[in-house]
Amino acid sequence: MIESELRNSTTEEVVAELRRRSSFVMVSHVKPDGDTLGAGLALGIALRRMGKRVAYFQQDPVPRNLRFLPDTEFVARELPADLPPDTLFVFCDMSDYSRAGEFLPKIEREHMLDIDHHLGNSHFGAFNYVIPSECSTGTTVMHLLRGLGVEVDKAIATCILTTIMTDTGGFMHSNTSPEVLELSAELMRLGADKEQITEEIFANKRVAATRLLGRIVDEMQFAHDGRYCWSHVDDAMLAQTGADGEDTEDIVNTLRGQEGVEVAALFKAYDGEIRVSLRSNGRVNVQAAAATLGGGGHFRASGLTYVGSLDDAFAAVDRALVAQGL
Amino acid sequence: MIESELRNSTTEEVVAELRRRSSFVMVSHVKPDGDTLGAGLALGIALRRMGKRVAYFQQDPVPRNLRFLPDTEFVARELPADLPPDTLFVFCDMSDYSRAGEFLPKIEREHMLDIDHHLGNSHFGAFNYVIPSECSTGTTVMHLLRGLGVEVDKAIATCILTTIMTDTGGFMHSNTSPEVLELSAELMRLGADKEQITEEIFANKRVAATRLLGRIVDEMQFAHDGRYCWSHVDDAMLAQTGADGEDTEDIVNTLRGQEGVEVAALFKAYDGEIRVSLRSNGRVNVQAAAATLGGGGHFRASGLTYVGSLDDAFAAVDRALVAQGL
Repeated sequence: MIESELRNSTTEEVVAELRRRSSFVMVSHVKPDGDTLGAGLALGIALRRMGKRVAYFQQDPVPRNLRFLPDTEFVARELPADLPPDTLFVFCDMSDYSRAGEFLPKIEREHMLDIDHHLGNSHFGAFNYVIPSECSTGTTVMHLLRGLGVEVDKAIATCILTTIMTDTGGFMHSNTSPEVLELSAELMRLGADKEQITEEIFANKRVAATRLLGRIVDEMQFAHDGRYCWSHVDDAMLAQTGADGEDTEDIVNTLRGQEGVEVAALFKAYDGEIRVSLRSNGRVNVQAAAATLGGGGHFRASGLTYVGSLDDAFAAVDRALVAQGL
Repeated sequence: MIESELRNSTTEEVVAELRRRSSFVMVSHVKPDGDTLGAGLALGIALRRMGKRVAYFQQDPVPRNLRFLPDTEFVARELPADLPPDTLFVFCDMSDYSRAGEFLPKIEREHMLDIDHHLGNSHFGAFNYVIPSECSTGTTVMHLLRGLGVEVDKAIATCILTTIMTDTGGFMHSNTSPEVLELSAELMRLGADKEQITEEIFANKRVAATRLLGRIVDEMQFAHDGRYCWSHVDDAMLAQTGADGEDTEDIVNTLRGQEGVEVAALFKAYDGEIRVSLRSNGRVNVQAAAATLGGGGHFRASGLTYVGSLDDAFAAVDRALVAQGL
């Protein structure tokens, strides 16, 4: 039984509900990553094997580097027209229902199952299966697959291993526990294609993204005795390199990884706004810093949108970080 | 018993020899990495616990990012003056004795133990313990530690996990078998500090190295329908970024990782010569290409030194690769 949070459902309750329903829509969050999509696909494939009707909804298109996952050809940006009234909507990897985006029609709470591993999950479903000690939503789903007695085959194993490798940064982050490594070994033995996951998610960098990284690195600046590193990307840099916004996602982590850097910021000044991504090594609380400028997130990773000039944004974020002890 | 190669010693034979001798010199190869050093340190620490005398020899200094390893303060660039005549020299992670460098005095074969995981190992020792199916020399050493009955504590576990994470590229390469993940989980449970290894070896990038990467990426060129990517680094780029040769090691892998790229080359035109690193995704044999220009290596990774101008080097390597089917 999972007792990590109030109003959480037990494994048995969720398994019983999955058995009871005959139709499902697996919902991924906007800007989908390997965890939201891999978790939904793994459970969706298992439910289809059980003879259930399964659809996939995702507001944004499937990112290029996740199209190798099984069943992604069924992921749609709108709902099927003829959904039965007892359809259960399964939200994967979302702290809140709103992360599904604005285009999903309103769903009654009684038809919502919320599967997640985020500590701050709002428990928005009639059924909530949230295990913050899990490294990914996919490993959370593994408990349900075991409860359902589904055979984990190559397709499902590849989906789950994708969720692990996505949310552990390829086994690099501190959430890579011995149990995570052992589960990954088991998934490989079950046929998970680790080499393809590695190639698609980590190795296969687009040329444009690499050129953009080169430009952003050229613009790196340092302050506070090298503890703070920041850089920016603007419309012109995207145009010159042929990159798009999707290509900027991981660059702030590269800035944070510079020797001696405790806090990093990437200022994304394109599409008519300035969005700022903040990362901390754990000493300075960047969630608190972002909150003072209307943003949010986690202690080590947060973000905000700034209205004003880029130079003003640099100054405002610097002040907010200094106020948190940078 | 290990029977993977002719003239290989068994685990029992090597363990008996380690017990019989009272003095050891652990030898790492030139340009030491986490495997040669971690394997030597792990076995050295174990032998010291058994009351043996242990020294460490390494021609080059300990790289910055490996100084966190236990016992590195004992690694010396010369031999102790008063070595007993029965001292056993333990060479870790070297296909041949010559990889120890030119400054190691001549050692009699009867006093050499060769521990390695490379297929082409020359079996230069009186004792040779070479297991090509192992992902690292450190995991090869694990068999000896088990044979010796040594308790694997936090220090030894950290050394062995460092060898694994070094030689699997942080669990990314195809040599990351389920067994490797399970052994890594076991080493974490024994106290291996995976977070520190990750930070030192993978995350903690020097600013100069990142700036150099940015410059080399700016100079990327593509040919043969995007299947071939090359770039270069010269003395001026090193001076402008503050980087040194050590910082160029992994960049050719970044070039190879570009979408659609099958073969990558990095031309290192500094210190008065042009050294070329080649990487292949497995279709084109870059060892064969390098061999036609006097170089060598492996099917997927090779290198050569070119005498002439940089433009001539570009052309010569292109021709050699085309001859191999690029």
